[in-house]
Amino acid sequence: MNFDFDWSSLLSSALTISGRILLLIILFLIIKPIGKKLITGLMNQVASKQKLSEGRKKTLSNLLLNVYSYVLIFLFVAMLLPIFNIPIAPLLAGAGIIGLAIGFGAQGLVSDIVTGFFILIEKQIDVDDYVTAGGENGIVEELGLRTTQIRSFDGTLNYIPNRYIQNVNNHTRGNMRALVDFGIAYEENIDHVTQVIQKVCDEMSENPLIKEGPDVVGVQSLDDSQVTLRVIAQTEKNEQFGIERELRKRIKEALDENNIEIPYPHQVNVPKS
Amino acid sequence: MNFDFDWSSLLSSALTISGRILLLIILFLIIKPIGKKLITGLMNQVASKQKLSEGRKKTLSNLLLNVYSYVLIFLFVAMLLPIFNIPIAPLLAGAGIIGLAIGFGAQGLVSDIVTGFFILIEKQIDVDDYVTAGGENGIVEELGLRTTQIRSFDGTLNYIPNRYIQNVNNHTRGNMRALVDFGIAYEENIDHVTQVIQKVCDEMSENPLIKEGPDVVGVQSLDDSQVTLRVIAQTEKNEQFGIERELRKRIKEALDENNIEIPYPHQVNVPKS
Amino acid sequence: MNFDFDWSSLLSSALTISGRILLLIILFLIIKPIGKKLITGLMNQVASKQKLSEGRKKTLSNLLLNVYSYVLIFLFVAMLLPIFNIPIAPLLAGAGIIGLAIGFGAQGLVSDIVTGFFILIEKQIDVDDYVTAGGENGIVEELGLRTTQIRSFDGTLNYIPNRYIQNVNNHTRGNMRALVDFGIAYEENIDHVTQVIQKVCDEMSENPLIKEGPDVVGVQSLDDSQVTLRVIAQTEKNEQFGIERELRKRIKEALDENNIEIPYPHQVNVPKS
Amino acid sequence: MNFDFDWSSLLSSALTISGRILLLIILFLIIKPIGKKLITGLMNQVASKQKLSEGRKKTLSNLLLNVYSYVLIFLFVAMLLPIFNIPIAPLLAGAGIIGLAIGFGAQGLVSDIVTGFFILIEKQIDVDDYVTAGGENGIVEELGLRTTQIRSFDGTLNYIPNRYIQNVNNHTRGNMRALVDFGIAYEENIDHVTQVIQKVCDEMSENPLIKEGPDVVGVQSLDDSQVTLRVIAQTEKNEQFGIERELRKRIKEALDENNIEIPYPHQVNVPKS
Amino acid sequence: MNFDFDWSSLLSSALTISGRILLLIILFLIIKPIGKKLITGLMNQVASKQKLSEGRKKTLSNLLLNVYSYVLIFLFVAMLLPIFNIPIAPLLAGAGIIGLAIGFGAQGLVSDIVTGFFILIEKQIDVDDYVTAGGENGIVEELGLRTTQIRSFDGTLNYIPNRYIQNVNNHTRGNMRALVDFGIAYEENIDHVTQVIQKVCDEMSENPLIKEGPDVVGVQSLDDSQVTLRVIAQTEKNEQFGIERELRKRIKEALDENNIEIPYPHQVNVPKS
Amino acid sequence: MNFDFDWSSLLSSALTISGRILLLIILFLIIKPIGKKLITGLMNQVASKQKLSEGRKKTLSNLLLNVYSYVLIFLFVAMLLPIFNIPIAPLLAGAGIIGLAIGFGAQGLVSDIVTGFFILIEKQIDVDDYVTAGGENGIVEELGLRTTQIRSFDGTLNYIPNRYIQNVNNHTRGNMRALVDFGIAYEENIDHVTQVIQKVCDEMSENPLIKEGPDVVGVQSLDDSQVTLRVIAQTEKNEQFGIERELRKRIKEALDENNIEIPYPHQVNVPKS
Amino acid sequence: MNFDFDWSSLLSSALTISGRILLLIILFLIIKPIGKKLITGLMNQVASKQKLSEGRKKTLSNLLLNVYSYVLIFLFVAMLLPIFNIPIAPLLAGAGIIGLAIGFGAQGLVSDIVTGFFILIEKQIDVDDYVTAGGENGIVEELGLRTTQIRSFDGTLNYIPNRYIQNVNNHTRGNMRALVDFGIAYEENIDHVTQVIQKVCDEMSENPLIKEGPDVVGVQSLDDSQVTLRVIAQTEKNEQFGIERELRKRIKEALDENNIEIPYPHQVNVPKS
Repeated sequence: MNFDFDWSSLLSSALTISGRILLLIILFLIIKPIGKKLITGLMNQVASKQKLSEGRKKTLSNLLLNVYSYVLIFLFVAMLLPIFNIPIAPLLAGAGIIGLAIGFGAQGLVSDIVTGFFILIEKQIDVDDYVTAGGENGIVEELGLRTTQIRSFDGTLNYIPNRYIQNVNNHTRGNMRALVDFGIAYEENIDHVTQVIQKVCDEMSENPLIKEGPDVVGVQSLDDSQVTLRVIAQTEKNEQFGIERELRKRIKEALDENNIEIPYPHQVNVPKS
Repeated sequence: MNFDFDWSSLLSSALTISGRILLLIILFLIIKPIGKKLITGLMNQVASKQKLSEGRKKTLSNLLLNVYSYVLIFLFVAMLLPIFNIPIAPLLAGAGIIGLAIGFGAQGLVSDIVTGFFILIEKQIDVDDYVTAGGENGIVEELGLRTTQIRSFDGTLNYIPNRYIQNVNNHTRGNMRALVDFGIAYEENIDHVTQVIQKVCDEMSENPLIKEGPDVVGVQSLDDSQVTLRVIAQTEKNEQFGIERELRKRIKEALDENNIEIPYPHQVNVPKS
Repeated sequence: MNFDFDWSSLLSSALTISGRILLLIILFLIIKPIGKKLITGLMNQVASKQKLSEGRKKTLSNLLLNVYSYVLIFLFVAMLLPIFNIPIAPLLAGAGIIGLAIGFGAQGLVSDIVTGFFILIEKQIDVDDYVTAGGENGIVEELGLRTTQIRSFDGTLNYIPNRYIQNVNNHTRGNMRALVDFGIAYEENIDHVTQVIQKVCDEMSENPLIKEGPDVVGVQSLDDSQVTLRVIAQTEKNEQFGIERELRKRIKEALDENNIEIPYPHQVNVPKS
Repeated sequence: MNFDFDWSSLLSSALTISGRILLLIILFLIIKPIGKKLITGLMNQVASKQKLSEGRKKTLSNLLLNVYSYVLIFLFVAMLLPIFNIPIAPLLAGAGIIGLAIGFGAQGLVSDIVTGFFILIEKQIDVDDYVTAGGENGIVEELGLRTTQIRSFDGTLNYIPNRYIQNVNNHTRGNMRALVDFGIAYEENIDHVTQVIQKVCDEMSENPLIKEGPDVVGVQSLDDSQVTLRVIAQTEKNEQFGIERELRKRIKEALDENNIEIPYPHQVNVPKS
Repeated sequence: MNFDFDWSSLLSSALTISGRILLLIILFLIIKPIGKKLITGLMNQVASKQKLSEGRKKTLSNLLLNVYSYVLIFLFVAMLLPIFNIPIAPLLAGAGIIGLAIGFGAQGLVSDIVTGFFILIEKQIDVDDYVTAGGENGIVEELGLRTTQIRSFDGTLNYIPNRYIQNVNNHTRGNMRALVDFGIAYEENIDHVTQVIQKVCDEMSENPLIKEGPDVVGVQSLDDSQVTLRVIAQTEKNEQFGIERELRKRIKEALDENNIEIPYPHQVNVPKS
Repeated sequence: MNFDFDWSSLLSSALTISGRILLLIILFLIIKPIGKKLITGLMNQVASKQKLSEGRKKTLSNLLLNVYSYVLIFLFVAMLLPIFNIPIAPLLAGAGIIGLAIGFGAQGLVSDIVTGFFILIEKQIDVDDYVTAGGENGIVEELGLRTTQIRSFDGTLNYIPNRYIQNVNNHTRGNMRALVDFGIAYEENIDHVTQVIQKVCDEMSENPLIKEGPDVVGVQSLDDSQVTLRVIAQTEKNEQFGIERELRKRIKEALDENNIEIPYPHQVNVPKS
Repeated sequence: MNFDFDWSSLLSSALTISGRILLLIILFLIIKPIGKKLITGLMNQVASKQKLSEGRKKTLSNLLLNVYSYVLIFLFVAMLLPIFNIPIAPLLAGAGIIGLAIGFGAQGLVSDIVTGFFILIEKQIDVDDYVTAGGENGIVEELGLRTTQIRSFDGTLNYIPNRYIQNVNNHTRGNMRALVDFGIAYEENIDHVTQVIQKVCDEMSENPLIKEGPDVVGVQSLDDSQVTLRVIAQTEKNEQFGIERELRKRIKEALDENNIEIPYPHQVNVPKS
């Protein structure tokens, strides 16, 4: 390739070896401090937020800075050598092996962030929601791109990397159902019991936490020793447990008052003939 | 390569270094604002639909814009350097590692969309269908390319990324079956009981919600303490639970009226000889 | 490379830059409308078959057309730039990342089709067969390259992406077995009971739905409270459940008639010495 | 590159553009009909073997022929363009994405064939063997490179893609064991019972289907309510179930004759003091 | 390419073969001892910390040094050969196979470190926290980038590679809940029992380890033989188990004092009619 | 590139097109029969060892020979085309897709061989060992690089592809433990029972199959209805089952002789007050 | 490229074809015997250590040597061909397919070694430790880079490829806990029982194998038929089982002496009214 000599001197020298080396050095002199500042800044921010001890902060940011330096040196050498016509394919192949391991090992991190991004943007979860996600059940304390923190009702704080969140079950998006099953003896009259319990339900229905019902929906099953009836109500969110406890107490007392038997397990004893 | 000089001046200069740099700069000046607008527009649309707070919206769109800028800068530098004959293979290898992680981490998102596309186009699910999908059971509230929202009967709203939907069980595509099993004592005459219950069934069959039956289909099993009979009916969709409850109540009352024993668990007591 | 000038003018200009650009533009002008027509046609066909609403059809085909346009534009730019000697390796690397995600995310679709193809060509399933596949159990309603639809006996319509179908259990490829186990008391004479029940079996064997047997095959187990005998018959396909119910009823009645005890669970009560 | 002009005219023209295009066209004209014939032939063969309906056969072979045409066209265009110096790297990258999906999606098919090949060549399974493989249990009806068909004892025909076959349990490679456990009361004398049952065993041992034993091997466990003894025999393959039933019957009758108690579950009743 | 001869002699010779070989040798002479020192130093550090025996230390560092040497030799040869125009693509392909295996096999290590890094920087776990992570439950003894050590309460020391840690359940991030369920007979008056137990709770509430409650929250369930009531308190972290034991003892004693029956399992005995 | 004409004529012509084509043809003429012979030989060897029928042998070796031919033809064409300057990148890409599927599908085979190699070289298993591996339990009949054959005690022959062997539990590498647990009534004196059973153990210890013990090690658990004591012995390999049966019998008889009660399950019956 | 002729004759000839071929042959003549020696040496070492039979040793080392030869031949041919300007891309692609399978199939081996390396260097396991790892429980007999051997308490020797070791539970890193739960009747006075058992504990605490306790920690649960108390002690490692047996015996005897009832399961019998 013969290029005309009337080009600007800058471009011309850029094609000489010395010019290319110079350009490369300048490039790395620009990039190095930028990256260093970025890492230190990020670490300081995280450290102050998480109240990391000075020691751990130093260890972790040194780790990052070391890795950063090694990567830069490798890149510089690998970009310099071909200028001297020294082949770097074997070098790249070697780096590729490490890269493969890193790429696979780090995919979890990307997965966390992608999942986290969509949880945030689709507003699947808000702080203070009562949710079941990633196998944990409780109140959301913090939402992050990488990790979601859920406080279980027993006080445990659960850190869930977002990639382990598959379905999100949000229990605070609308009214919740209170459901109470109770058994009566096979000897009882179903219609009579339904009337008695429906009266209890009607009294309960004035509770402002209850949005709909409660109602006796019917015979849920014919069990071994009892006929099981079901009562259902719609309550304000997070109030379903309290309403269920109240319902259970009132149903039990109403059955007692009306001498309706709540049966124990039964067994017919057959004498050996 | 010697090209003739009678070509148009535009193409000629396009092959000079300065021309190529110019072209590259123009290309990026065109692309940058287009991408920015696209991202901001998309975020605004999502934010207003999901009613995201102004703060979160800003955080998320800044995140996207930052990533976009870094990618553009990297592409620009990586396309500029080889024009100056500076090798970029190491740079590409480095980016490839990050890319591998991203590609693997983001495959879930593609999987969501591919699955979502086919759920929509094959009309497997419609809003307000009662379905079981991705381990959740309830009424479909919203269908999206990435996420499906199902409202459980207990009021929970479930967000299911479409890739976790394997089989779709749609319970609102045709009539449903109501099925009631009930036990009678080994001492009872099966034919007699069948007649009694079939009469109950025949009365029930006038219910317009019932499309077929109900019918006593026969002896389902010879259990430890009882002979189990089965009644089956075809009902309007979503009415099967109510019909089953009604059937259970009527069967129980018919058996009582006819003095047919519904047996408790039996045990033969053998005295130790 | 110096090529002789006696070549045809067409080929000569094909090697000039302007000629190559022209050829590229022509290529894309040919491909674009073909692809567009194909997509619109396919969507129309699917939409009319699935009775998709006009709105959803438009949304989905716009989605496909948009993706198609972006891909074409990217290909055009990426094939144009190297003609101007602008390196596109970084561009390809970037596209490769997205491609990796797409390739991985879309493999499920290919898997569906490959599996579907072999299910069809090996005739493992036919419409109206009673099968168990992909965890669902019922009658096949529709067979597709991507999805198989099975109607459960409870009326649910199950959409199974073919890749989730591992083993296919086809219950309508030949006669089926009816199997009834029943228990007799340890005090009974096994030979006598066998005679009694074999007589029941022999009467049943005239049923044209029964292809072979039924026969008492012997003592299946010595259980806690009973000796379990087994009766087996070969029936027409899909008739096994009816035959089993009939057999159970007849066996129970024959045992009653002959005063053969079907034992309840036994327990020896040892008084505390 | 300057090549001498004394080469043969054929080779010389092969290097000209027009010659290369010609060669390419000839190549594709040769390949196209060969592939088409191969596909149609294969489909005809399969169709007649599986008795596919004419309609389905046409659909499936059209599908294959279409895919084949598109692949050929793509290959032709992609091999033609670089002859005109038009870069095809972006095209290949695009095809690579689809290829990745296909490669991953189709690996199951290869897995099937590799596994099938070794099942055949190691003769792990023969037609009419009684085996457990891939979660199915029954008699092998057909062995293929891709699929194995096993007929369950209940009449179901199971199609198992070979890749789902992990361990093969072949129950027809040698004698099988008949094993009967039976319980006696804690009050019985073990030596006496052993003698009684061993006598039964000795009588049974004349059965030509029994290759070895049966023998009482001793006290298998001291259970809650009984001492469990074990009897073992070696039988002809596929005869173990019949022998076990026979053994169970004879042991039960021998114990009855000798007034040896087979105990029911025991419970000590402690009166509340 | 014709370069002018007025360049500096250094760069000029760098392009000659001998110059490139020389440069390559110098590069490896610099790198070799650095890597060796790094490995030996790291091994010494680890060995003294873990108190490895001299023998094992030598074995392991020899292993590392050997691998290091082989890699260097391979890189040197593979970078030298192309200078002599000997193609190394087959060599690289061969190395790529080994590299693929290494990359996949080593991804676990990267996964450990990435996960470990985020556990540390997000402070999910601290030494002496009581946590459940990676299937182990106990007190954290040591936190590392690769491994976390948890001491179970039975004294076992568990080494968990960080990649096996999915959710972290930290039981020492705030107050914990003490929860005691107890049953009362169906005959008891719920209000009376609640008063009695609430009095016990009020006495307990003066315990400084209890932050809130304890309180009787109501009827948790209507069980087979008992009505189950629930008491809940908030305690200092790690004190929940002691408080629960204390509560159980006091509740039991209070019920005894007030002659409130804690029921045994009930069974209704029906005489065979 | 201008090469001097004083080179040997052989090498000179090797660089001409005709020379390269000739060389390629020679190469393939050498390789083809070698590969064919190798395949036929291998198949003959396997077929005679496994006693494959002539038909199946022919089918399988034809399959292999066909695949071999197609691969050779493809390689020949793909290596010939670039000599004529026809680009083959699209061809290679196409083959790469099939290759990806093959590579993934065949990895199981490599996995089998690698695992098999180490099982053989580490001598984890020997023919006639009693082992548990890959979910099967029995006597090893044959060890192969690809498959291990284990004969279950019920006579089944299990073929286990080596990759499914994870842990190998070898029960014939040293003495085995015989362990018998037995229960005594809560009323018995533990020291007295221990003496009685230890005497039984001491008599047993003279059995040459017992290497150590048996000994009463103490109170293993305080169960619902009994105090459980444990006896342990070390026996010759494969003799543990016989020794355990013998121990059980002797312990039962010793307890009987000494009137030590082996308790049935107990239950305290509380009359409903 | 025109190179000056004043270079050393060695380098000049290195660039001629004959020189490159010569160099390649020399390279392979050096490498071949080195690799052969290495393989034979390694095999001899392993064979003598594992006491492999001469036959198996020969088979396995022949296998390795064969593979080695084929690889060398392939590499030689593939590096020779491009010197003659014959393209080898198709050859490499073919080898790549096999390589992919090998790379995936062999990753388990690398995984074993990486995991093994860290188990050794972090000293997670020592020979003679009592550990639970990879699903096996017992005493470590041998630690290797690829396999860990654990001797179960029943005498089985377990070979665990290191990659199957996830968490390591080391039961010999510090004192272990002895834990005994025992039940008392609801009628008993908890304080009185605690005093009685604490006295037993105090006597036990003089045992030098006990490092701390034993102590009665309180009421562990209010069970169906009993109040469960818990006793905990810290013992020397590996002594916990003996101490627990001793504690159980002493507690049982102390309760007997003090006439404290250890309750059987209770049941309230309700007569059918």
